Formats: sequence, structure tokens, C-alpha cells
Amino acid sequence: YIYPTELYFKQNLDHFDFTINATFTQRYFVSEQYWTKMDGPIFFYTGNEGDIELFIKNTGLMWDIAPMFKAMVVFAEHRYYGKSKPFGNLKPSTKTIKEFSYLTAEQALADFAILVKHIKSTDSKAKNSPVVVFGGSYGGMLSAWFRLKYPHIVTGAIAASAPVLYFPSTVKCSQYNEAVTNNFLSVQNGETCVANIRNVWKTMNETAKKPGGLKLLGEIFHLCSAINSSTAVESFIKDIFGNMAMVDYPYANNFLSNIPAWPVNKTCQHLSEPNLQGLDLLQAMHSAIGVYQNYTGSVKCYNVKTTETSKLSTTLWNYMTCGAMVMPFCANGVTDMFPVKNWTQESFDKSCFKKYGIKSRPEWALTDFGGSKAVEAGNIVFTNGLLDPWHVGGVPEMKSESVVSILMWGAAHHLDLRHANDADPSSVVEARKTQVKHIAKWISSTQERLRPSTAHRV
Amino acid sequence: YIYPTELYFKQNLDHFDFTINATFTQRYFVSEQYWTKMDGPIFFYTGNEGDIELFIKNTGLMWDIAPMFKAMVVFAEHRYYGKSKPFGNLKPSTKTIKEFSYLTAEQALADFAILVKHIKSTDSKAKNSPVVVFGGSYGGMLSAWFRLKYPHIVTGAIAASAPVLYFPSTVKCSQYNEAVTNNFLSVQNGETCVANIRNVWKTMNETAKKPGGLKLLGEIFHLCSAINSSTAVESFIKDIFGNMAMVDYPYANNFLSNIPAWPVNKTCQHLSEPNLQGLDLLQAMHSAIGVYQNYTGSVKCYNVKTTETSKLSTTLWNYMTCGAMVMPFCANGVTDMFPVKNWTQESFDKSCFKKYGIKSRPEWALTDFGGSKAVEAGNIVFTNGLLDPWHVGGVPEMKSESVVSILMWGAAHHLDLRHANDADPSSVVEARKTQVKHIAKWISSTQERLRPSTAHRV
Repeated sequence: YIYPTELYFKQNLDHFDFTINATFTQRYFVSEQYWTKMDGPIFFYTGNEGDIELFIKNTGLMWDIAPMFKAMVVFAEHRYYGKSKPFGNLKPSTKTIKEFSYLTAEQALADFAILVKHIKSTDSKAKNSPVVVFGGSYGGMLSAWFRLKYPHIVTGAIAASAPVLYFPSTVKCSQYNEAVTNNFLSVQNGETCVANIRNVWKTMNETAKKPGGLKLLGEIFHLCSAINSSTAVESFIKDIFGNMAMVDYPYANNFLSNIPAWPVNKTCQHLSEPNLQGLDLLQAMHSAIGVYQNYTGSVKCYNVKTTETSKLSTTLWNYMTCGAMVMPFCANGVTDMFPVKNWTQESFDKSCFKKYGIKSRPEWALTDFGGSKAVEAGNIVFTNGLLDPWHVGGVPEMKSESVVSILMWGAAHHLDLRHANDADPSSVVEARKTQVKHIAKWISSTQERLRPSTAHRV
Repeated sequence: YIYPTELYFKQNLDHFDFTINATFTQRYFVSEQYWTKMDGPIFFYTGNEGDIELFIKNTGLMWDIAPMFKAMVVFAEHRYYGKSKPFGNLKPSTKTIKEFSYLTAEQALADFAILVKHIKSTDSKAKNSPVVVFGGSYGGMLSAWFRLKYPHIVTGAIAASAPVLYFPSTVKCSQYNEAVTNNFLSVQNGETCVANIRNVWKTMNETAKKPGGLKLLGEIFHLCSAINSSTAVESFIKDIFGNMAMVDYPYANNFLSNIPAWPVNKTCQHLSEPNLQGLDLLQAMHSAIGVYQNYTGSVKCYNVKTTETSKLSTTLWNYMTCGAMVMPFCANGVTDMFPVKNWTQESFDKSCFKKYGIKSRPEWALTDFGGSKAVEAGNIVFTNGLLDPWHVGGVPEMKSESVVSILMWGAAHHLDLRHANDADPSSVVEARKTQVKHIAKWISSTQERLRPSTAHRV
């Protein structure tokens, strides 16, 4: 595809408080390459917690099927991310909290609604175009919610790997790490790999306590700067394993990081010798994380603070989790392979209050967006890959007249949203067929309803 | 029915800004008189711009059909009205604008959503109860919008006389006053009555200009205090005529004011002599407005500032119209019977800015709530009476699988929501049957879906 055109649109900063007149400019990209005016639908990506260009490049499905539907393709950036920042590079803190009070899913959806209307009103030929929305992960939550909240604007939604149920009252906090572990267990030598990983935490901890231990850890893991406890390396590795399970795709790619095909499998190859101990174990672990962190071999040292592309903003996302996007994570070391870590609403709130001076509302997202009852909206295809740790917070497999939830074996985080690839498992190939079938149905039923008013134009 | 129980519930003042922790107490009323636990639905009135007790007493339909459905009956007060005031008796102004920034339809709907969840969570027997919402006028807009925005909470909505299209881009500002005039034209001697009304404005104006004229007007109209122009009386009479058309019911009632059956007809009886002039015309007009303002004959003098029950708050409603509830009214004296009055968005905004320092958002309600496309939500019965001036802003007559819009001849503002009465026109009797049929369908389809999970309890 030809890279879409970059555009900017003025949005109200606060859609729900009419006494605030401030605005900001939202970035979006439009491609009319495949669009047949008068008939073509609008494919609209509901941008998530990152620079929208990351999603332009990693949502191949929209580009693959746009010619078939003669669709206009739009990618809308989520407020505060990428180049759609109302307050520039300001970071959320107790001091800047007022500036970040407009960073919510509800405000983002209102932006999207107004943007769609703007696009339709500025081109009379798009006036009656059906709008199909796409999103993956948090973007998939937004696409489902956009259909739920604005059915008069959105005819249907493709919600890929959308953890609409990953909230405190609808999952156990252990489920995410269990799912990561299950992915690792599923590969060749998985049991051995997981056993070695379970051992590494203690080994790192013991090493760190010895004289010169921290320095040694820094050397083994090629860290760019000195650490003052083993915790930093621990978090770094845990994050890498979580991300690796997410992007455990059947081909090399550059989505979160530059990685080879089946990274979890490759990682476990480095940890396949039973009962690795001490230095051997640590060195094996260094090789293991290199699959994710240094696939090209060109990385000279590791920065323990960065495990994924800077195109995603964990800083802003973490702030959002202190509002309505409360997602609980814990580990027990028994049903998962990680060091024990508790999660309670109280301790979470305490940390949010310390960082930002706010109190989370863990029930609000379920009240506002319905959790699995979002299916009441109709016209949504939910997909979840069984290799993806997030699938545990997705809508379980189901079929109703107008809502389908598909579980895909052999697929990681929204693999179905990527370009078709010969290496794709048949589950993903089938899921895409179902998505296309539903999109076709949504579009034709909307066009049918609008036909009377344009019946005389031929 | 036994009067329901008064209750209070703590709500977040701002549902969309997680950095604000203030709360307020919302009033609501619950009746379990007819409720059969485990099976019965919840009938929920989405309170509008007034004290909720006004609607308890004037929404007889809910009480009439509650026994048939074994329903729990709930009336929820709208934030800022009645006894649900976050800032007590504070009035909106440029100085108090921050305190009123939480007075929006979106916040009110979020209150309702949370309240429903609260009711369901505090009584395990109500957990699976289908929720049917009711509302009239702005309350009807809210009931339709509640279904649209929270389909996972609301199974269906009875939206009576809901002017979901009375916004600047979807009506002409003249339509309301044309509809008032058409009601007056439809009664016996209607043409003569309207001709006399058309003359009265000039006569009042001329009288006011003469020496002692204002005093004379005050005497003729039995005003409680002196006026300094005829405009005050003019607005007073115009409001009365609008209200009278709204509550032009076939039986005496006490909804907005204590009035006889068919008040418009009775009013026109006082203006049925052709070509009334001067003092005769003014005196006839005084008698005419007495039908609405002094039916009991006990009112000693008229306060030109009050034309309806103090249970409704026009002060707060007028403020809301300066946010998203922008409703345009103008008169041309040709297609209507009123003195010429223009309406432009610019002059409206100017007045809003002067009063409150805010700028209205006339397109937002249509973007957020979809106007006539709210039917995309499914499961809504819209009803509009042809005598009701608001019907011009309602969803036009239509039938789809799950949304019905019914126009009722001989009916004024949400007559169908009132208790059944022998004097009801058959159009209203039929509309109620349709409402009941849809309510039954909504309830049974929801109960059916929930049945599997409770199949073993018998």
C-alpha cells in the first residue's frame, strides 16, 4: 500500500464538560488508495496507547482487505499519544494531574466519533459510507466499545485480542502470568525451560547478595549502567517474557521489538538443558532474553528500563490504569514461573495515589462498557489467540447471531490483524475469513438500509 | 399504589474525570409492592429536569402495568434537581460555573447506570432482573439514550414525547410555535381564536405605550407586581399557551398546573368572538389564560415569572440548553400566532456566554446520542402525541423489528405515560398496548437468555 496521508483535526479537550473550551489537535492518517467513492465503506482503526504509525505498519489486515471492499482506510491516533499530545511532553504526576484528567477511554471514543463525522461531512461522497472499526489489544477494546457506545456511527467492530474482561472483579490477578507460563510450557522442552526459569530468580537474588554480585550480574546481562539490586533485572526479564509470549508469531517481525519467528521456542532452546545452576543458568538466561532484546546482535548493552518499542507509551498507559483501566497482575511461582508477587486493590490504589494523587475506579469500565455483555451491542467479532497471555481477559468463545468470539490456537497477540503470511496457522486464516464474512454482512445491511434515499441517482 | 420508599445513594460527582473525588447523594424511590423476586423485572424511571416526585405522581403507566409484570418500580432523580443537588441551592452563573459543569445528560446517565447496578447488587434476587426504562419529554430522551449507551444494563426503553431531534440542525426553529398554533387551530372556533391571539400582541404593546398603560395592563391581567414593559406579560402568555398545548389532556389534572379537561378548547372559548379589539380583547385574554393559571379561581394575582409547577426547574434546564441541549425556538407570526422572534446560534451563544460564560455545543447531542439513528440501539418504543408541540422534534412514525415510533392523534405531551383514563383517545389506548407488547417481549427474551444459568434452581 501507499503510505496514507497525515492529517490533523482540532478536538475539544473535554467532551463532557461544556465549561472547558480548550482544544488539542488529533493526528490521523487517511488512504483513499482503494476507496470507491459513493459505495466504499470506511475502515477506521481506533488508535491505542502509542504512536498511530506503529499500528499503520502492523495492522496489515486492513490493507489486505481494503481493495476487496473498496474501502477508505483511516488510522486515528489516541489522544495524548504519538503526536496528539494536548500538553506536549508533560508527564503525569501529582503536580500535573489536572492536565491528564482528559486522558480516558471515554474521551478518546468521543474524539473518534467526532472525527468520523468530520470525515463524512467534509466529503459528501462519504456521507453514507458504512464505518467498520478495527483495533487490537486496548485498541480492540476501544473498537468494541466504539460499536457499543456509538452504534449510530459504527456498523461493526473487529476487536482483536481485546481484554475487555481483564479487570479486578472479572479475572484472577494470577491469570496473566499463568497464561505466559502456559505458552512457555507448550514449546519443545517447555517443562525444562520453565523449571530453569523458576530457578533463575533465586539464583539472581543470591548472586546479587554476594560481594561484587551486582557488578557480576551487570556483566553477565551486559547492562548499560550499574544496578543497585537484582529487582531491576528481574522486572526486565519478566517484562521480556510477557512481551515474548504476546508477540510469539510464526515469522520474524519488528512490532514490539526486532524478533525471530517463534521467539518463545527459540528462547527455550537456550534453557533446554535440565537443572542449569549458578553462572551457567545466568548465562543461559542472558542468551535467552537476547532472542527478544538482541536478535540482530547489534545491541551493545541492555537498558533494563526498555523492553518494547518507544512507539508505545507505558508511562501514559500506567497512568490510565490508575483511572478505569485497572488490570491486576500477580504471581505465585506455582501456577506460574515467576517470583511471588501479590496484588491487592488497596496496595494498587496506594501506589496510584502516591504517583498521581488519584484513586482508581476498578468497577467503572465494566459498568460503562459492559465487560462480556458488550456483545449486547451486536456486530462485533472478538478474536483471541491461545498463545497470547491476554486471551484470559477476552470474551470466551461464543457465537450469537451478530457477535462472534473466536479462539485461535497457535496465535499470539492479535496475529490476525497482521498481513496474511504463509506461516499463519490455519486458525488465523479461518478467523480472517469469518471477519471478512461479517464485515461484508455489516456493510451490505447498512448500504441496503440507505439505498432508498439514493435509489434515483443511477 | 402505595407510595414508594425514599432512598439516597452516593454518586461520584464526575464519572468521566478520575482526578475528581467529590461525591453527592442522589435521591431515588423504590416500590417492591408488585415485585415478585427472582422473576420480576425492574421498571426504572429516568428522572428529568425536576423533582422526581412530580414523575412518581404523573407516570401512572408504570404503576398500572407493574402488577401484570410483577415489576419492581424505581424512580431515579436527575442530578442537581429535586433533592439531588450537589451544591444545594446554588444557581448557575458566570461565578458558579465550575459547580455546574457536572450537570449534563452524560453524567446523569452514568448515575442511572451505577444506580441500577447498585440496586441489583444489594438484592441478590434482583441480580438477573431485566431492566425496562421509562421516561417522558427530556426524561424520554434519557430513557432512549440510556438504552443506546448501556444496552448491557437496559433491555428496552419506553421513550414518550422525547424530542431527540429538537436540535438546531434537525429542526427549523419555527416548528415548535407552529405546532402550538396548530393545536389551537384544531379546536372549535380555532381560526377565530388564533386570529384574536395574533391581534393581542399589538394591542398589548400599544396599550403599554399609552400614559398609564402599563398600570392598566397590570390591572387587566391581575399582576402581583408592577411591570416596566409589555414584554413581561407577552412572555408570560406565550409560555402559558405553549404549556397549555403540552398538557392538552382530555381530563382535568394537576401536572404542570391545576387545569380542566381540554384546556386549549376552553381557552379558545374565551376568544371565540370574531375580531375582539382593545380592552375587550385584553379582558378576553385574561379570562383565556385563567384556564391554565387560575382554574380553581383561588389565585388572587399572577406572578408573570411562573407558568408551571415549581417541581420543574427552568433555571437549571435553561442552563443545560447552553451546553448540549440546544433547542431553537423562533416565531414569525405567519405560520404561527406569536410576535416575530428570531433565533440564531450566534445570538443564543452570546446570551449563554453572558449568563454563564460558556459556549454551547449544538452538534454534540446528535453525535453522542444519534438523533433519529438512536433506533440503532433497538428495543425502544417512541411515542408522540400530535397535539403536543414537542412532537415535531420526535422520531417520525416508523416500525422496525425492534424499534417502534408511534404518532398518537388527540394526545398531548406523553399522555400515554399517565394512568389509564376513560377519556383517553383510542390512539393512546393502542399505543399502551404496543408498549406492553414490546415490554413483554424484551423481558422474556432477556429472561430466556439468563435461564440456562438458573435452570437447576427448581
